Amino acid sequence: MNPVELIQKKRDGGELSRDELSFMVLSYTRQSIPDYQMSAFLMACTIRGMTDGEMHDLTDVMLRSGSIIDLSDIPGVKVDKHSTGGVGDKLSILIAPIVASYGIPVPMISGRGLGHTGGTLDKLETIPGFRTDLNVREYADVVRRVGAVLIGQTNDIAPADKRMYALRDVTGTVECIPLIASSIMSKKLAAGIDALVLDVKVGNGALMQDLERATALATALVSIGKQAGKRTLAYITDMNQPIGASVGNWVEIRECVDCLRGERGPLVEDLLELTHLFAGTMIWLGGKAGSVDEGIEMSRASIGSGQAFAKFEEIVAAQGGNPHALLSDTIYPPPLHIVNVQSLQKGFIRSINAREIGLVSVQLGAGRMSLDDTIDPASGIVMHAKVGTSVNIGDTLARVYSNEEQGARPSVERVRRAFVIGPDRPEPIDLVKRIID
Amino acid sequence: MNPVELIQKKRDGGELSRDELSFMVLSYTRQSIPDYQMSAFLMACTIRGMTDGEMHDLTDVMLRSGSIIDLSDIPGVKVDKHSTGGVGDKLSILIAPIVASYGIPVPMISGRGLGHTGGTLDKLETIPGFRTDLNVREYADVVRRVGAVLIGQTNDIAPADKRMYALRDVTGTVECIPLIASSIMSKKLAAGIDALVLDVKVGNGALMQDLERATALATALVSIGKQAGKRTLAYITDMNQPIGASVGNWVEIRECVDCLRGERGPLVEDLLELTHLFAGTMIWLGGKAGSVDEGIEMSRASIGSGQAFAKFEEIVAAQGGNPHALLSDTIYPPPLHIVNVQSLQKGFIRSINAREIGLVSVQLGAGRMSLDDTIDPASGIVMHAKVGTSVNIGDTLARVYSNEEQGARPSVERVRRAFVIGPDRPEPIDLVKRIID
Repeated sequence: MNPVELIQKKRDGGELSRDELSFMVLSYTRQSIPDYQMSAFLMACTIRGMTDGEMHDLTDVMLRSGSIIDLSDIPGVKVDKHSTGGVGDKLSILIAPIVASYGIPVPMISGRGLGHTGGTLDKLETIPGFRTDLNVREYADVVRRVGAVLIGQTNDIAPADKRMYALRDVTGTVECIPLIASSIMSKKLAAGIDALVLDVKVGNGALMQDLERATALATALVSIGKQAGKRTLAYITDMNQPIGASVGNWVEIRECVDCLRGERGPLVEDLLELTHLFAGTMIWLGGKAGSVDEGIEMSRASIGSGQAFAKFEEIVAAQGGNPHALLSDTIYPPPLHIVNVQSLQKGFIRSINAREIGLVSVQLGAGRMSLDDTIDPASGIVMHAKVGTSVNIGDTLARVYSNEEQGARPSVERVRRAFVIGPDRPEPIDLVKRIID
Repeated sequence: MNPVELIQKKRDGGELSRDELSFMVLSYTRQSIPDYQMSAFLMACTIRGMTDGEMHDLTDVMLRSGSIIDLSDIPGVKVDKHSTGGVGDKLSILIAPIVASYGIPVPMISGRGLGHTGGTLDKLETIPGFRTDLNVREYADVVRRVGAVLIGQTNDIAPADKRMYALRDVTGTVECIPLIASSIMSKKLAAGIDALVLDVKVGNGALMQDLERATALATALVSIGKQAGKRTLAYITDMNQPIGASVGNWVEIRECVDCLRGERGPLVEDLLELTHLFAGTMIWLGGKAGSVDEGIEMSRASIGSGQAFAKFEEIVAAQGGNPHALLSDTIYPPPLHIVNVQSLQKGFIRSINAREIGLVSVQLGAGRMSLDDTIDPASGIVMHAKVGTSVNIGDTLARVYSNEEQGARPSVERVRRAFVIGPDRPEPIDLVKRIID
């Protein structure tokens, strides 16, 4: 086959066969097709679109470009959750121990932060000793012993996707729904799961800015999952203010610990509602509840009984982390500077620009500008008001955590401007916009 | 400026400013934008198209990426001709001496063969000693002394186009009219001309397969020329059978010599008609004739008087070639093998697949499969019948010239199949389909 002819075919709106897609993707992975041909091909896919058949074939080709983890000798329905990424999105860290506390295996392969969104791996790695680079044998072993594991993508999972994703990021070819969907699903399907719940976020802090595109992505993801014979379901959820109160790494772990130990209140209400919805759905998919509603009740009960937090300590220990650090302010050093962001107005918080909060937290060192950057574990932003909170002049809107005073000061103004305050109480936010199954 | 944002802008159908195009093209030329970003950008241009404004800006940016030759101290209207490429297209070699014989300067920058089409430079270089790699000073000097020169693109003419063209060739982004037009015109406008006649070929042997696209390309080319203040005119001409009788390199030079010395006949009728049309138009643009028709008469007279051939000998000598080789069979060795292609049918030649004849001649060694290939000067194909010729079984359709017997034998069958023979005499071919000015 001739790569130029296949590029031309896609350029002219044609549909590629499985063999043709396989030739392009596998030749690129073994570097016999150069970057410049693949990027022209990806641009043609982005503008012309891809058929459902092409998307399914592409997913399968990328999935089979590496090793597929076999967890079939572990009993139970293995369930995972995947989020398209948000600001303050710490759901996986709460959900994994809750679901595992009912004996449902949760093998999770998570990501790192890039752009304005945080990454589960970066957050977990702030726990002293916690390893996310387990190999496939260790991964299966932790699932078997503890019931849940959270690791990063290994080099042998979907290597084709790894190369293509890096290229898409620098060639303006990220925003293509079939490419996004096949990239996500090729990795998920390689991880040995039986069922999957997807959290497709929509709003100013999400990859998908409007409901129409979020629905298209959710539909594509669910279609690929079902085609592969996995039970798959997607919720489209709101990403117009940070989830919960904290945005960063160690601050988010601390928030998870508080939530798992039963803390409630208006600042984490949205976080808990989403946690119970996703955990409840996974308990139901795992066959331990007769309905999602029953699953949600079980999720609440797991926190109430302390079983969820106990399971979290087990997971931390199994992955090499120090569970004592979770509750000790002496083991974990606080940031050098904590600066209050005060309100200059009286009124109700009408909205909080999640994307801007995410970008400021990256600037503070909590995220990466490029893949080589290192993370400052202690920096971040903690909200003291969320949409609907009534504030007076001088009230604390948020606190900026930083290890560099120069870094914190300019951030204060940006954080303040991310809060829109008005005289009227806003309508409550619907956290779940749509369910796709 | 951020290249990814500019790629995204074009991907989403936006129009780039001159500064934005300049940033993309010049950064690419000095290698601060990598191939994979430029190829994604070119694919977005190919699918989304470019506005006339973008096309004019792109041409000007590429033109100014290198040096612009100044011939203003040479008196007279400097006129060039450019062809989009064909099979047996030797027009430049005939036209340059004819037009120069009237004292009109003809500074021609020509190309090499690639794909199924031949190149003027490859043909001229089969003349012993002939140099096409003159530098800018030598180039201007030959125009001044002899009146015409035919050289290749120098490294400092439109270097941006040179890099972009090489990339387009391998990324499925050749077939974009604004990119084709700006590529051609950036080189032509850098050569120091005042007026330009374009030969946009259409048909199975041409880059443009249908009249609609040929018209769009001709319109784009003329628009760029006029925008740059040059008198520009395009003819759309037929490329559905090889032009003249010979296809190759030395065989085409010999055909030019024969034509310049007054040979006529049905096999070169089309070649002479096009030669006189283009030369006549150039004589008119050069201000030496009151009309194109008068120019055509002057073109015929230049051959009839022997002035055209004498000028050709002067050009050959000025560029280092041996004019005695043109008429001597002892200086120039014949090919090792000449094989007749005989007709297996009786009837009229209905059509000759020019593209296939071009491809066979490449296979015989007369053209290149890749840029590093060397040319076999003696190989080629000489037609003994053209569209409309009546043939009997056993009549010679063509002769295959080759230096490798193994190469000639399989070619015979392909050449035979390129001739379509039927019982009825075909309609005469209209050589000129449209005039765009």
